[in-house]
Parts: sequence; structure tokens; C-alpha cells
Amino acid sequence: MNQPRILTVRPEPGEYAWTSGGAPPVARIAPGTVLDLYTEDCFAGKVRSKNDLVSEFCQFPFLNPQTGPSHVEGAEPGDTVAVHFVSIEPARDWAASTTVPLFGTLTSTHTTASLQPPLPETVWIWQLDRDRRTAHFSAHDGDFEIVLPMDPMHGTVGVAPANLQVRSARVPDAHGGNMDIPEMRAGVTCHLGVNVEGALLSLGDGHAPQGEGETCGVAVECAMNTVVIVELLKGITTPWPRLESDTHIISTGSARPLEDAFRISQPDLLQWLVRDYGFSELDAYQFATQTVESPLTNVCDTNYTCVAKLRKEWPPARETHRGLHARLREAAVLLPH
Amino acid sequence: MNQPRILTVRPEPGEYAWTSGGAPPVARIAPGTVLDLYTEDCFAGKVRSKNDLVSEFCQFPFLNPQTGPSHVEGAEPGDTVAVHFVSIEPARDWAASTTVPLFGTLTSTHTTASLQPPLPETVWIWQLDRDRRTAHFSAHDGDFEIVLPMDPMHGTVGVAPANLQVRSARVPDAHGGNMDIPEMRAGVTCHLGVNVEGALLSLGDGHAPQGEGETCGVAVECAMNTVVIVELLKGITTPWPRLESDTHIISTGSARPLEDAFRISQPDLLQWLVRDYGFSELDAYQFATQTVESPLTNVCDTNYTCVAKLRKEWPPARETHRGLHARLREAAVLLPH
Amino acid sequence: MNQPRILTVRPEPGEYAWTSGGAPPVARIAPGTVLDLYTEDCFAGKVRSKNDLVSEFCQFPFLNPQTGPSHVEGAEPGDTVAVHFVSIEPARDWAASTTVPLFGTLTSTHTTASLQPPLPETVWIWQLDRDRRTAHFSAHDGDFEIVLPMDPMHGTVGVAPANLQVRSARVPDAHGGNMDIPEMRAGVTCHLGVNVEGALLSLGDGHAPQGEGETCGVAVECAMNTVVIVELLKGITTPWPRLESDTHIISTGSARPLEDAFRISQPDLLQWLVRDYGFSELDAYQFATQTVESPLTNVCDTNYTCVAKLRKEWPPARETHRGLHARLREAAVLLPH
Amino acid sequence: MNQPRILTVRPEPGEYAWTSGGAPPVARIAPGTVLDLYTEDCFAGKVRSKNDLVSEFCQFPFLNPQTGPSHVEGAEPGDTVAVHFVSIEPARDWAASTTVPLFGTLTSTHTTASLQPPLPETVWIWQLDRDRRTAHFSAHDGDFEIVLPMDPMHGTVGVAPANLQVRSARVPDAHGGNMDIPEMRAGVTCHLGVNVEGALLSLGDGHAPQGEGETCGVAVECAMNTVVIVELLKGITTPWPRLESDTHIISTGSARPLEDAFRISQPDLLQWLVRDYGFSELDAYQFATQTVESPLTNVCDTNYTCVAKLRKEWPPARETHRGLHARLREAAVLLPH
Repeated sequence: MNQPRILTVRPEPGEYAWTSGGAPPVARIAPGTVLDLYTEDCFAGKVRSKNDLVSEFCQFPFLNPQTGPSHVEGAEPGDTVAVHFVSIEPARDWAASTTVPLFGTLTSTHTTASLQPPLPETVWIWQLDRDRRTAHFSAHDGDFEIVLPMDPMHGTVGVAPANLQVRSARVPDAHGGNMDIPEMRAGVTCHLGVNVEGALLSLGDGHAPQGEGETCGVAVECAMNTVVIVELLKGITTPWPRLESDTHIISTGSARPLEDAFRISQPDLLQWLVRDYGFSELDAYQFATQTVESPLTNVCDTNYTCVAKLRKEWPPARETHRGLHARLREAAVLLPH
Repeated sequence: MNQPRILTVRPEPGEYAWTSGGAPPVARIAPGTVLDLYTEDCFAGKVRSKNDLVSEFCQFPFLNPQTGPSHVEGAEPGDTVAVHFVSIEPARDWAASTTVPLFGTLTSTHTTASLQPPLPETVWIWQLDRDRRTAHFSAHDGDFEIVLPMDPMHGTVGVAPANLQVRSARVPDAHGGNMDIPEMRAGVTCHLGVNVEGALLSLGDGHAPQGEGETCGVAVECAMNTVVIVELLKGITTPWPRLESDTHIISTGSARPLEDAFRISQPDLLQWLVRDYGFSELDAYQFATQTVESPLTNVCDTNYTCVAKLRKEWPPARETHRGLHARLREAAVLLPH
Repeated sequence: MNQPRILTVRPEPGEYAWTSGGAPPVARIAPGTVLDLYTEDCFAGKVRSKNDLVSEFCQFPFLNPQTGPSHVEGAEPGDTVAVHFVSIEPARDWAASTTVPLFGTLTSTHTTASLQPPLPETVWIWQLDRDRRTAHFSAHDGDFEIVLPMDPMHGTVGVAPANLQVRSARVPDAHGGNMDIPEMRAGVTCHLGVNVEGALLSLGDGHAPQGEGETCGVAVECAMNTVVIVELLKGITTPWPRLESDTHIISTGSARPLEDAFRISQPDLLQWLVRDYGFSELDAYQFATQTVESPLTNVCDTNYTCVAKLRKEWPPARETHRGLHARLREAAVLLPH
Repeated sequence: MNQPRILTVRPEPGEYAWTSGGAPPVARIAPGTVLDLYTEDCFAGKVRSKNDLVSEFCQFPFLNPQTGPSHVEGAEPGDTVAVHFVSIEPARDWAASTTVPLFGTLTSTHTTASLQPPLPETVWIWQLDRDRRTAHFSAHDGDFEIVLPMDPMHGTVGVAPANLQVRSARVPDAHGGNMDIPEMRAGVTCHLGVNVEGALLSLGDGHAPQGEGETCGVAVECAMNTVVIVELLKGITTPWPRLESDTHIISTGSARPLEDAFRISQPDLLQWLVRDYGFSELDAYQFATQTVESPLTNVCDTNYTCVAKLRKEWPPARETHRGLHARLREAAVLLPH
């Protein structure tokens, strides 16, 4: 096996992208390239203490900085770019979360508008013990602390959108983006359909951890050191992002209303069963109805996201996406640490 | 410890209830009573082969028969009735599922109406191996078969609704009903707020198994032999049904649109953390955002249901619902087999 | 022409119905009967000054009292009951409106829940000048007054629902109920599909006036003296309530989410064009797309309502609903004043 | 009064814009400029007979061509650009409409997905009699014809969006765009908040006529010769597009779910009453609840749109938007014909 090309990308403050599409590529990479990335947190690193309110320290549209985009050589519309997460490691020993006025699920927002005043803006600083791999919650009102497993993931992974559009990096849609899926962990492969030449892949928005739904709108936001392998599947279309882990195949849907996120993700899983596992569409409908796991992942962003997960041990054993996930798992092991 | 009262209820065909509320009680039971129940499947047992189409064999409103209701002595509005599932065992060695014209998620319906024709009506008969505890899927189009774990649960558990209403047994709402929650398994305690004197508890709609969302609208539908212990918590209100398992506390929400099911279940979980675990509301909001599991359970019924699940090991150790779940787990062990 | 039977119904305080279905009939009437009704306002008359807060003076489920139900002789499932509004006259020279905590569109509610506190509870008393037919708004904050046309209508008109259900009188659905349609004025005929023997027709919830959407959840609520003629159309089904005025045919839909109210009302209008006006379904789809008026009527109740209105002068001249509306218009003129 | 500057813009086929934002300006214009525009129909003129199916003749993203954008000199974020429609005249004596597979309200779509096949694709060619100002519907299935009033309007009017985004011209949002509001007629002024320097105003998508909701997704699509006056209101913010006619002030909201379109438009109207008419917010809430008209305008596009309309004769007489609408009405009269 050839030595993999490893490209390190550690952006300076002015070098982040704030959109999916529309930003010039920071690198041209060949398929198979290993990217060793630094990603800043969704606040662009500006929330560092309980006094650093988003409404004072952050400014639209400069939220959710993305590392990239990378131009993937040879990627064309009709292809799929695969991003395999080798490792996602918090870059700091703390992370921040907060309520944001008129943002999140349990508040009115600018579009789910009410006449009620916003909730109080409150910042929580979480301590991360990177050796013990724990995240520490300290109550604001009271003196108790809770120790949780650290569970790093990326909220935002995406390519340039279709139809000449440029979308804010805060938007999840068919191009990926801010899907906020807890399953976007180390060990997982994410497939993204290519819409423009070179795909223009970027990622950011590290969380460690995030619950399903990201209810208050903000996870445990953390800068990350992340290693991914980027691959290209020529001639395979991927209308909506798909994930593959060692245990599950996972379809996604991002839309409003929330019903539509479900109505996208579930038939995508059926089509997966039809294309790669030998089911008829109705058999897939019946089978998935009895076996699918359907967690919500974000109910706070511009589009909501839910996923449709199926245990790989259940459908007949078949190769999917040309066996790429298994190959990338092996390749990841061989990378220098 | 006293010998528990055990009441066996095996309804004759004409003795089922088709509504939550509105039906006369079939029994008066004291708190602590063990109910040994037979429940019919959602088709009232009329779908027994691939030729038995719901559109021909079943008739509105005679779907989803409920066993009960039971009048719980002493239960009054402001109290909570708890149903502990001791065992849920398929009563037959087969179960049925089907598409139903204009019902389910991946089709237009009578309310999400379109001008498109309905999907084909197709019945799948699943074989259950009750010794090996497996459920067998046979493809309709093709000759493969898949073996899944059997995972029996009740789709419908409820009391009479508030506000003088009588609801179809197919409706999930604040009174419980057809929530179709896979977690409603043996070993789980379900808490239901009492709306009328005697509560009028009933249950039915056995599934073995059901995926999250019940996408095609119909699970692996199965008659069940089910044993529950019914308890009464005086003076505890439960605005929306709550579940407790050995590992999780689980809030529920049932509404349309789907967003509202989420917007009900998540603050209910926050209120649970506030009332029983010592959190302030904002701390609970932050904590749950990072830790909650949020699976959809039904996206096909009159109201959609999702749940908000939290691992019991994570919040500070406290007693909830007067420690009832643990006591009922112990009591269940002592029951005669 | 025979002298019409006129029945006067002026309920005593304890004689109102609070549900659609479930209440015993207050009268048996033959088709063609003229009902001379008194309806109380939605507060049961308990909000009479700026100090009379709903949260203090009213109590669930005793809101939105209905006059009735009337058992219509000969009405069976599969038939349609028609209610022609001869006159709707405010019974008092004032009316009341108010914000209600956690009710209305521009606030979170018990199901569209947030952590924000409710809006202030404020009562507005409107003066009605019944001679000049005006309604007078007095600003709460400031000293200006605005004079509007009086425009009396009934928010709630319905029959017993199908499927053994009993619904709160605050619910709009296929059985009619609390649809809050401003077009429910004098001169209009409302068609309701019969679900149970005798139909069990009731009405209430007078408004004078109400805007489209009933945004704050409460119109200018007013007791009414109302005269209707009740007719029966044997063998005509009406899946969702329909209205006919001198100028428009009007289909309705009541559901959540709001999309579904639209998705019900528009195809119902298409089916109307197909059944009674000679259109094919696709031609009706095209024609209605270019001609329909689609106001929202309530975006605050348990289900939302919107209507699909078509000018009667536009489709080919045909008789609909056996020409009943025109006949009832003529009959109304001949009634004693 | 000075002679107004009149600029004629008649794009060649390759000169249309397909996005809001992202396209270079075709003209720089001073405030007060009269634009004499040609707009192509939403099919880019490619559907000219019953045989010209969108699925064969049109190609994403080349739908809904926009004339423009124009850079309005001096326009900066925080300002408002006003577009006064002097005249909108069909450029041809025919117009086209069609069903489009998996697009429109009464069908499943790519996001409100189902497993049902798409509806048949059918084209209707409407004849326009520009002298008599009528539009003629010819039934596809049957031989009848219906004559309707011609009622020309623009479906799409917008500026570049905020937050570095570029949106497809098929998207309605806070920047305007494809709102499909029948009230966008000659004689109306449309106010759009400026997000980028020069505003980048464009318009297209002529309809003659369109019903409320644009149910099948496609109106009577027509190339237009349109004259507008473009003005600039420095220092006035307009978060969501507003319209002013001689009779109404009209707020808009475009979002999914449909509830949110309503929840945006209604408080925008309240804020209008607060800012320009002397109401407190709660008085505005009460007053608008009783007086607003709330038609849906599109329930088919990427975002749905509804409007909140208030008769100008009802609130206290005040000047709004610096009296611009009245001045532009007068200026329009003085233009050469």
C-alpha cells in the first residue's frame, strides 16, 4: 500500500468559510487524501467564559466557521464524496454551551414567532478531561456537578449545494451541512452527493457531547483536532447524506416541517435496501417499519434533521457503497499516530 | 407481604373497548391488583393470511380493540395510575402486518391528502418462534427470510381523557392511548395522569416487534398474554404519560405537527428533572440538551409521538415517583409463574 | 307552502352542551324546522368587564357552550344536514375579547410549548351599536377608539363526530365544531355530514366580528339571537363541512399541521367541482389553482382551519346540493320577522 | 417635477438571473428610476404547447428566470427598497400552466415524500384576450371553456439575501423572492429590506391570474411587459417584505411549516401598527385579531407564504413608509404611456 498523502489544515482566524458553496477552496486534494484538520467551535472561539454572551460577542453571519472547503479532484455531479472520520479529539480542555435569545426549540424564534420575551441568556462552561474522556457539567443554579462520557462528533459536514445556491454553514439540507447528528463520530463514514465540480467539502462545529435534538440549540461546543480520509465514489449518486458505522447504515433527512425530515430519511433507507440489499420497495417498507431506529438529531436549526438507522446484521449480507467503509476502517488503523 | 390479588381478563369477541373513555368498566380493581390479560391484535384478529385485506375484513371503528377499561378504586383527577408490565407474551405463533390504503407515513392520507392513488394493499404474515424468541420476516417479492429478535410491547395503554371527551382507541394524546412506543416492554412502568374517577385504564395493540416511527402504520401485530400490576399514586399529577425502565426515565409527547410532540416531551423531561432531581429549569434545559435520546415512536397515527429518554445513571441519584418502579420490579419477581 | 315549524331554544345556564356528541338531545326536530336560538358567548357569559380574567372566572371544560344538540329526524350516516343562517343578531350591546395565558397563535401553548412565561392576560370590552351595526374598539394603552362594521357569525357549528368519539366543543374537525370561519354569516348555508342517527346538531360561539386566523385565539365574543333553518339531504355524503353563500362555494379543512387543513380543503373543492360541475379531477386541479381564494380562518384552536372558496359565477352553471341554498334563501324571506 | 429616468431592460436568452444574490448586476440605477422590463415566464418560455412537458423541455436550475438584478445606488443594509408596480401587461396572447411531477400541494414531493407514483404531467395553454382583459380556460377532459378576468401579477420580486447566501429564484424568504402573492399587482408598492450594498433587485414569474395557494404549483404563467418605479427609503428597516395598496397594508411571511409563515406575517403586521399607527403591541394584537385578512398565497414552493392584510381605512389615519405609496401612485400617473 502506498503511503497516504496527509494534508494538514489549521486555518488562521480569517481563513474560515461561513457558507456551504461560495467560498474559494483552501486546498485541492486527490481522493484518498488524509486531512488533519483543526476546526474552531461554532462561536468562532469567542465564548470562553460565563460572561461571554453570544448576543454581545458574536455577530451574524460569522457563526459556525468551517474548515475548508477542499476541492476533491475528479469529483463531479453524480458522484459521491465519502468522509471517513479517523479521529475527533477536543483541542481544548473546556467547551462552551449557552442559550441564545430566540434560538433553540423551547423558545419562540424569529420564524416560530411569539410576542413573548426571549429566555435569559446563560453560558455554561464544560470541563473536558481528555485523559479520562469525560465531560463535566456544573449546575448554574446549585452546586452539583455531573460527569458524562466525552463523545466527540462533528455537527457540520457538507459540500457545496446544487442549483447555484450558497447556503449559510448553519443550514442542513441535501448537501449535508449543519445536520448535528450525534452518530458523526470517529469510526463513521459519511457519504455526500456531489453537486459541483470538486465537491467543495468542509466541516466544523465539534460537539462533545450532544443529545438527540440539540434542544436548546447549542451543544457542548468545542474546537477539534480531527483526522478524516476523503474518498470519491465515481458514478454513485447520493441524494441525501448517508452514514455508515460498523453496526448501522444510516439515512438522513433535513427539512421543515419535522415530518418532512422523517419523510426524506425513511424512503432513502428503503431505496438503500432496494439498491444494495435486494429488497423490493414494499418489502423494504415492511421490513424497515419493524426494525428502523429513528432518532431526531436537531430540532433547532434552519432545517430539522432526523435519521433512519438500520442494524447491518439484519438485512442479507451485501456490499454497499463498494465496500468503502470497511476499507477505510482498515486504512485508518494503518495511519501514523 | 400479602398475596397479591390477581384478576384474569380474557374478553369474548363482543367485550372489547374501541375508545379511551366512554366504555363501561369491565372490572373494579384495588391498587396493587395484578391483571392477567388477553389482548387481541389491532385487526381484532381478522387478518390471518395474505388474503385478508384490512379494507375488506376490517371495519371502522372496530379497529384496535382494548382490553378493559378497569376502574381503579380511589383514582381521582390529580392522581397517577401506574402500570407495571410484568410480562408480554405473544398468544399465537404468528403475527400480521400490512399496508393500509391511505394510512401510514410514506403515502398520502385522508388528511395529508393528495390526488395520487393509494399504495397497493399487501399483507405480511410473520412467524414467531416463542421458544427461540424470534420473529421471521419472509419477503413478498423474492424468497429470502430474515430472523429478528422478538421484542413484544404494547402500542396502546391509556386512561379516559379529560374534558368530557371520548377518543378512539387509535388516538394517542395526553391520556396515553395509541402511542406506539417500543419501550413499552416487560419490565417497564408507565405512569398515566388520572382524568376521571376510577381512571378507566385499558390496553391493547401488541407488537412484536415495532420499529421507531411505525413507518408503514402497522407493526408486527400480535395478540398477547400480558401481566401487569396496577398501582395508584395519590396526589401526583402526570400531565403527559411517563415511562420508567431500569435504565431510563422517559417522557412522552403526542401531537401534530411532529414538532409539537417534541416540544411536549422535552419540557416534560425538564420538569421531571426539576421536580424530582433538584435541577433549575435552565440547568435542566442545558443538561438534557447534551444527554437526551429522542426517538420518534409513531409518525403515522392521529397524533405523532416522540419520547425524551434520559439515562438514570446520569442525573444525581434521587427517588422519583416515590420509588414505585423499583418496588414493582421486586413485586413482579415474587408473582407465581 | 306550509307554515314552517318554529322552535325556540333559550337554554338555562345548566342546559348547554360542552361537547360535540355525548350530550343528550334537547329537541327532536323534523327537517325544515326553523330554530330560533339563543347562544351564550364562549366564556359562558362570565367575562363582563376588564377585571374578569378567564384564568379566574372560567373553568375547563366549561368553555364554548353550545345550544343543542338537536336530533334531526330521519338523519342517518351517509346523509347531510344543512343549516341555513337566517339571522345572527348580538343579544347584548357589548362583547368581550381577551388574551388567554398559553392560548392563541403568537404565544407558546401547552403543545407548542416553550420555557417562556405567558403573555399578560388582558380583557377588551367592545361596545356594539346594534342600530348602526358597528363594533367599537377602545385601545387599552392610549385613548383612541376605532369603529368597525359589526359582522356577526358563529364560530362553532357541528354535529356528533364519527367513530364513537365525543369531542370538546372547542375542537374543529370533520364533524364541524369550532371552525371559526368568518363566512359563517347570515345568508349562508352550512352542510355537515351525518355520523350518528339524528345528527345531533348544535351551535354557539358568536363573534362580531372576527378576523381571519383568530390570531390571539379570541374573537369579539358575543351572545347571539340566531335563527336557522335545518334541512336534511338524504343520500348525500359530506366528508368535510361545506358552505354555500350567494356568491361562493366554500370547502373547509380542519387539522394540524396547518398544511393539512389546506390539503383537506383544496381537494374537497376539487371533488365538489367533479361531482356537481362536470370537471375531471385534473381540470379541477388546474382551474382551482388559478381561481381559488384560500383564507385561513383559525390558527389557534385544537385543529387549524382554512377554507377553499370559489366564485359561483365562474364554473359552469349547475345545481349543487339539490339547489337547497337558493330554496332556503327564499324560505328565509318568507319567515315572520 | 423632473423628467424621470426611464431604463428599459429586455434581456436576451442568456441574460437572466436564476438566483437571488450571486448574479452580477445588469444595471446601476438611481432611486426614482423607472424600469421598463420584459420578464420571461417561469419556464424560460419553453412550454408553448400541450406537448411541451416541463420534465422534458426544462432543466434545473434554469427555471424561473429573473430580470435583473439592478444595483440601486445608495442602498445599504438597514435601508428599504420600494418597488412600485405601474403596469404589468402580458407580453403574449397565451400563457401556460401544467402539473409537474412531484411538485405542487396535492401530490407527494421530494421532501414530503411518499412511495406513490407522481400525478400525470398535463399542460394547459390559456388564451389571453388582452383587449377584453380575459383569460380563457379550456378543459382538457371535456369541451367546455371558462372566461375569467385577466389579473396580471408578479410571483417573484426580491433582493439579495442576507448572511452571504445565494438562493434559487424559486425560493421565497425574508429577501422576498418567489412569494407568489396575487396582490403583487399594478398599483401596489412592495417594500424589501436591503441586505447587501446596492440591494440587487430582480423580478419575474408573471401570472395572469393565480389563485391563493397556487395549489398545483404552477399559475397561468406568462411573459410580461412591466413598468416599475424603484425607490429607496434610507434608514427604514423591513425585516420581511411588505406591500401597500390603495386599500390595504400587507405583511408577508415565507417559511416552512405553514404555521410559521403565519407566525411571521401576523407579528410583522402588529409591529407595523406599533411603529406607524400608535398602537401598543397588545392593542395591536387584539385589533388585528378582529380585522386581519389572512390569505395563503403559496403552499407549493420551497417556503410557503401567507400574508396579513389590514384595511387602511380602519386604523387611525397616519403616514406610513414616509407616504411613499401615495407619492408613487401620483408619479405613475404622470409617466408617458
